Amino acid sequence: MSDTAALVQRLAERVQVLEDRLAILDLMAFYGPAVDAGDAEAVIKVWTEDGIYDVDKLKMVGHDEIIKMVGSDAHQGYIARGCGHVLEPGYVEIDGDTAVATCKSQLILKDEDADGFTVARVTANRWELRKIDGEWKCTVRTSRVLDGRAEAVELLARGARGR
Amino acid sequence: MSDTAALVQRLAERVQVLEDRLAILDLMAFYGPAVDAGDAEAVIKVWTEDGIYDVDKLKMVGHDEIIKMVGSDAHQGYIARGCGHVLEPGYVEIDGDTAVATCKSQLILKDEDADGFTVARVTANRWELRKIDGEWKCTVRTSRVLDGRAEAVELLARGARGR
Amino acid sequence: MSDTAALVQRLAERVQVLEDRLAILDLMAFYGPAVDAGDAEAVIKVWTEDGIYDVDKLKMVGHDEIIKMVGSDAHQGYIARGCGHVLEPGYVEIDGDTAVATCKSQLILKDEDADGFTVARVTANRWELRKIDGEWKCTVRTSRVLDGRAEAVELLARGARGR
Repeated sequence: MSDTAALVQRLAERVQVLEDRLAILDLMAFYGPAVDAGDAEAVIKVWTEDGIYDVDKLKMVGHDEIIKMVGSDAHQGYIARGCGHVLEPGYVEIDGDTAVATCKSQLILKDEDADGFTVARVTANRWELRKIDGEWKCTVRTSRVLDGRAEAVELLARGARGR
Repeated sequence: MSDTAALVQRLAERVQVLEDRLAILDLMAFYGPAVDAGDAEAVIKVWTEDGIYDVDKLKMVGHDEIIKMVGSDAHQGYIARGCGHVLEPGYVEIDGDTAVATCKSQLILKDEDADGFTVARVTANRWELRKIDGEWKCTVRTSRVLDGRAEAVELLARGARGR
Repeated sequence: MSDTAALVQRLAERVQVLEDRLAILDLMAFYGPAVDAGDAEAVIKVWTEDGIYDVDKLKMVGHDEIIKMVGSDAHQGYIARGCGHVLEPGYVEIDGDTAVATCKSQLILKDEDADGFTVARVTANRWELRKIDGEWKCTVRTSRVLDGRAEAVELLARGARGR
């Protein structure tokens, strides 16, 4: 292989890493509009078929259970009242065809009897991701509210330990 | 064309896509410091000359009207009191020389008679963008407060539908 | 040098710029889980050995002083009570081996006698960064609360002026 061909090969690998990083950030950024629009068919595109969304009081396994949550009175009630599931940029570590992203999210709700909004909760999020047929999907998302519980702090600690 | 030359050509296209994505995220991230500094000349760099910023109660068309908003008593009053227009990462879809980004923003204000801050509103944002002479600019930004109004939810649904 | 070799050379430079941008965003995103986990050894990975973290009432110089802050009763008390240091995407300008990133952060705390959370403060952040042995680190991070003080607004204005 010529020098140029070898350099091109190495460059292609670096571009692949950049594409992977951006695809993961993109997938996470897609969750927001999907969930706040209450569009269950969009929301499940984030997860693999048997993907898990494990929140403090509710563990959803597979698309059907996630669809049920998005359509629930609780979630649709948030949307009717006014809500935003707001995400910060995730910290991403990629290892071949799997990755972990760690970030926090806020659930902000419209005040029912006032003009303003309230931060209902701040949550630690761990996204375990897998690349399948060239596309990144979430296999397990674990969310724990940051109200002092050790589990939520430990989730962030795991994310910070990789670096 | 040799194999290597063809590979380089394909690689250049992939790098272009990555540059486009980062340029758009960068433009959106630039809005924050510009608007919270009250720097109208910086803010208008985000939009094309005839760009539109369409907020619930105020539709601004072109640089002059956006400059007027930034210099208004209302906006300068927020800055004097203490404020942050905080953005989450946008979900971006590029189609050639145009793109759409969808995200939420928070307007956070200092409490007037207390130490803390209040989320005055959470807003759904749709940025329509165009690449002109190699530079991405916003042509239309539509912002609707997430207080339960259908228009705001529909704006997010449009953003989620593309994927 | 052949045409292809020259094109590859130019492409390698463009990929380097993209890698630099993502490495900086990544470093900033890493701060969140590290600080909210209260993991001082992780937090200091963000700064150079003699790096400065200059907050309104506390200027920390070097790793030891940052470690002390993370381990302090004040910071550990936030974690025990429930807290999130939430970051928005930064606006980044790179100039060779140095860079500046500007963004806002929120400190959100669990209400002590209620279910919800409160935005304790919104802060303007300026990150001065340097690439050392191929790795981006923060040399100076300056944080000023956005409560109307001129210093905080000026910090954002400096960030917006570069574009």
